[in-house]
Amino acid sequence: MPHFLNSADADFDARFAALLTMKREDAADVDDAVAAIIADVRERGDAAVCELTARFDRFDLTPDTIRLTGSEIAEAAAGVPDAERAALELAAARIRAYHERQMPRDESWTDGAGATLGWRWGPVDAAGLYVPGGLASYPSSVLMNAIPARVAGVGRLVMCVPTPDGVLNPLVLLAAQISGVTEICRIGGAQAIAAMAWGTESIAPVDKITGPGNAYVAAAKRRVFGRVGIDMIAGPSEILVIADADNDPDWIAVDLLSQAEHDESAQSILITDDAAFGRAVAEAVETRLVTLERRAIAGASWRDFGAVVVVRDLDEAAALSNRVAPEHLELAVADPDALAAKITHAGAIFLGAWTPEAVGDYVGGPNHVLPTARSARFSSGLSVLDFMKRTTLARMSPDALRAIGPAAVTLATSESLEAHGLSVQARLDRLNR
Amino acid sequence: MPHFLNSADADFDARFAALLTMKREDAADVDDAVAAIIADVRERGDAAVCELTARFDRFDLTPDTIRLTGSEIAEAAAGVPDAERAALELAAARIRAYHERQMPRDESWTDGAGATLGWRWGPVDAAGLYVPGGLASYPSSVLMNAIPARVAGVGRLVMCVPTPDGVLNPLVLLAAQISGVTEICRIGGAQAIAAMAWGTESIAPVDKITGPGNAYVAAAKRRVFGRVGIDMIAGPSEILVIADADNDPDWIAVDLLSQAEHDESAQSILITDDAAFGRAVAEAVETRLVTLERRAIAGASWRDFGAVVVVRDLDEAAALSNRVAPEHLELAVADPDALAAKITHAGAIFLGAWTPEAVGDYVGGPNHVLPTARSARFSSGLSVLDFMKRTTLARMSPDALRAIGPAAVTLATSESLEAHGLSVQARLDRLNR
Repeated sequence: MPHFLNSADADFDARFAALLTMKREDAADVDDAVAAIIADVRERGDAAVCELTARFDRFDLTPDTIRLTGSEIAEAAAGVPDAERAALELAAARIRAYHERQMPRDESWTDGAGATLGWRWGPVDAAGLYVPGGLASYPSSVLMNAIPARVAGVGRLVMCVPTPDGVLNPLVLLAAQISGVTEICRIGGAQAIAAMAWGTESIAPVDKITGPGNAYVAAAKRRVFGRVGIDMIAGPSEILVIADADNDPDWIAVDLLSQAEHDESAQSILITDDAAFGRAVAEAVETRLVTLERRAIAGASWRDFGAVVVVRDLDEAAALSNRVAPEHLELAVADPDALAAKITHAGAIFLGAWTPEAVGDYVGGPNHVLPTARSARFSSGLSVLDFMKRTTLARMSPDALRAIGPAAVTLATSESLEAHGLSVQARLDRLNR
Repeated sequence: MPHFLNSADADFDARFAALLTMKREDAADVDDAVAAIIADVRERGDAAVCELTARFDRFDLTPDTIRLTGSEIAEAAAGVPDAERAALELAAARIRAYHERQMPRDESWTDGAGATLGWRWGPVDAAGLYVPGGLASYPSSVLMNAIPARVAGVGRLVMCVPTPDGVLNPLVLLAAQISGVTEICRIGGAQAIAAMAWGTESIAPVDKITGPGNAYVAAAKRRVFGRVGIDMIAGPSEILVIADADNDPDWIAVDLLSQAEHDESAQSILITDDAAFGRAVAEAVETRLVTLERRAIAGASWRDFGAVVVVRDLDEAAALSNRVAPEHLELAVADPDALAAKITHAGAIFLGAWTPEAVGDYVGGPNHVLPTARSARFSSGLSVLDFMKRTTLARMSPDALRAIGPAAVTLATSESLEAHGLSVQARLDRLNR
């Protein structure tokens, strides 16, 4: 049974707060192990990577076989059935079209003082994309990470995917091929992150690393942050659905389950203004759970972290949702645009009953790499901006320096930074000669 | 004596690489101490903050006096001389005007399939600004952090500044007042970062923390990353000047010294296509060092990490500069725009001999919080975007779902995520009835 809350109950605030701070993940303390792995890869390069791969993935590599050859990739990709290839290509085209609109503008202008100011965006030279192996090896995640990088103009795009016992997922390779990945390495874990951040004999270092991963990967990304850029530290998935009574309870039930099936730590929350509808959805979830393939995982997530929250009205629903700052927010209500206008924090919003969140996981167009664990309060889903950086530009005319330079000298002096002031004053002296 | 390199020399590549990887900072390993401080503040709140402030800043606080009152701020700010107030106000107005142009656009469109897509930007609710105490307590940094936050629309802006022995810098308070800071707390170090990230009885938690600090502050920011957003982990300052022979060697010398005076770990590099000019600049540096107030710091920086690099031509200069990815780049050449077009990695570019970098530290308009330690390869200076986040929006019409939904079902099935597929299929079944 999920948690049932009603905003009219006396203990609601305490129970809702508990729902927000509920510890869903026991982050294993792997930091010391990860520090040792990174040091080993920095020190011994490929040799360390191959040894660690043999130990963790039970797979023997040499420096020559870390990287997949073009024919290995082509052969695997060629075996993918047509229907799946077509679906991946449709998804890729839609993701590309959406992200192309995110390209930022360069600007340049001259202001009243005669200063020409502006900025210019450019891509990172090389990006590294981590793709988990095993259960969570999703071709859709390859598209969602690689396509924004390529749209941004990144020239070199390295993908690391572990192949436990040597097993490769052909769909992952096809997704890499479709989205323009330039190198694929069959390594994973903290050793892959270390190799991409510091480089080895066979892998040149990258500038930015993105992509999901387990506790080792997350700890390694945190450690290499600063040496390279990273996207975010992703937590278990979440969905919040705000639905009025004018919905099919079964639709909302499968929407909740579509996050719950990801992970026992996932969290699915329904907020509704109709208690009977809330109960009907909970019943529909139980019905679906009887036959669902991943019922063990989805059932555990729903039982431990799922919730049905009954509120007085949709304004209250919006306010509660903003406290959650959900990764995914479905608005299955009569006027979803009006409700969306009241939402201040959410990774992605899915408007109306015809927009199940899963459409956004694959073919909607927006990115499915989104801020979890309430971090939509301060961060955004993956975008082309994550693979670009901005250089600011300034050019002073002599008149501009005459107009604003003296203020710089005053402030430099007040900060006891004499050379700062002198560098401006030397030029002002010339102008005043 | 700084390092003298000539790209025509046989050992140039090795020496230039050494210049890039030179360890300028002995990052003290304060991580365990910082972890303990953060745990203490989470556990005991204000009581821990007050005890730590007494210990580290030799200053007794109570929960009631952590936050400065309006009259304390007003009184200190009122004592600032008119010239300095006017200079701060000029700087604030120019910084505001520049950053207002950075406000991102919201977008919404309906594509050929009938999907309405887009995104929306919004500010974080609350931001925390760290301002170092003592020597590095710079009012200009208050402006550079606080103004972008306010332009972004952040409603609550908390500033933490330690006041060792109770000493406050009135200019810092005036800068906070001018730039719209809403709370000022006289605390510093890891305890201030912990208080802003987790909250205490007297300080509500914020969503994003920015601002420079010492090794403790940097380690604390790294640790709270994820709980809140952070800007970057700043290292010692750097300048790279590309100058041709048609420059006054003294101007370039003071420009190099304006970074060197920040910190013994700062790095100032001149790249020139004229060896005699390079020698003349080095001589001018020595002349200025005789009288410079901060000659001990600037001299140590220049001697240990400074460099004059002689190259064949400006194309080579641009290529070397891109390997450095400098925080600040001055282009004191005849055609700075042409040279700037060849620059791929730099935090900020200052074009032409009338644009000393120090103008950008105070009154230029662009932000002076910039990526150090080669991180301009993948990151940007502080901007309004650092205080905003983007929510993606998607709305499917029934026709859109009919067109693209089947591909989502195919991909969900291939990823063994049945409920994902069911959430789409349940709707498609209704459409096909």
